[in-house]
Amino acid sequence: MIKLSIFYPNTEGKNFDKDYYINKHMPLSIKLQGEAIKNVQVDFGISGLPGTKATYIAICHFIYDSYDAFDAAFMPHAEILMKDIANYTDIETIVQFSEVKLNLNEL
Amino acid sequence: MIKLSIFYPNTEGKNFDKDYYINKHMPLSIKLQGEAIKNVQVDFGISGLPGTKATYIAICHFIYDSYDAFDAAFMPHAEILMKDIANYTDIETIVQFSEVKLNLNEL
Repeated sequence: MIKLSIFYPNTEGKNFDKDYYINKHMPLSIKLQGEAIKNVQVDFGISGLPGTKATYIAICHFIYDSYDAFDAAFMPHAEILMKDIANYTDIETIVQFSEVKLNLNEL
Repeated sequence: MIKLSIFYPNTEGKNFDKDYYINKHMPLSIKLQGEAIKNVQVDFGISGLPGTKATYIAICHFIYDSYDAFDAAFMPHAEILMKDIANYTDIETIVQFSEVKLNLNEL
């Protein structure tokens, strides 16, 4: 399994509209990508270690069977999805592809 | 649901023993924390955007029912688990607590 993680750094002075993200952007992204998405989670940062703020205000994780599955599902809709980002944030994202090496359900 | 994410930055010159992490540290952590862990995933970074390296060499995500559930499960074993880190890495970690706001299985 491959995971696409999109990190939104918790940067002072930047905006992130959680309501739009959860209720508009994510449903759009999930609908457009269809069954290629095996799982998706959105995390909203609460804190870092006690007394410190969260490094990321939000993180989104999509799981696909393979990089090719991501490519086939996402790329045809990349333009519309990238364009929609301006509707909820001006934060510069960090993007990472990972191999899901351990998953409790598989233990 | 609450998620504890532990990020290991992909820093040049630092070490991370993936084999020890997956086969020794994670099983120990899962065993000690017991049923409080609702899910755990380990991600090994592959890449960033095309042509760039992954920001994190590894990320671990634990899911608990609540912060209190984390506190009760983890803190009694914190010393032994923190001490074990030196056995697989010299990377300084980033720790974040998040609220899991969206989970595909709940859609």
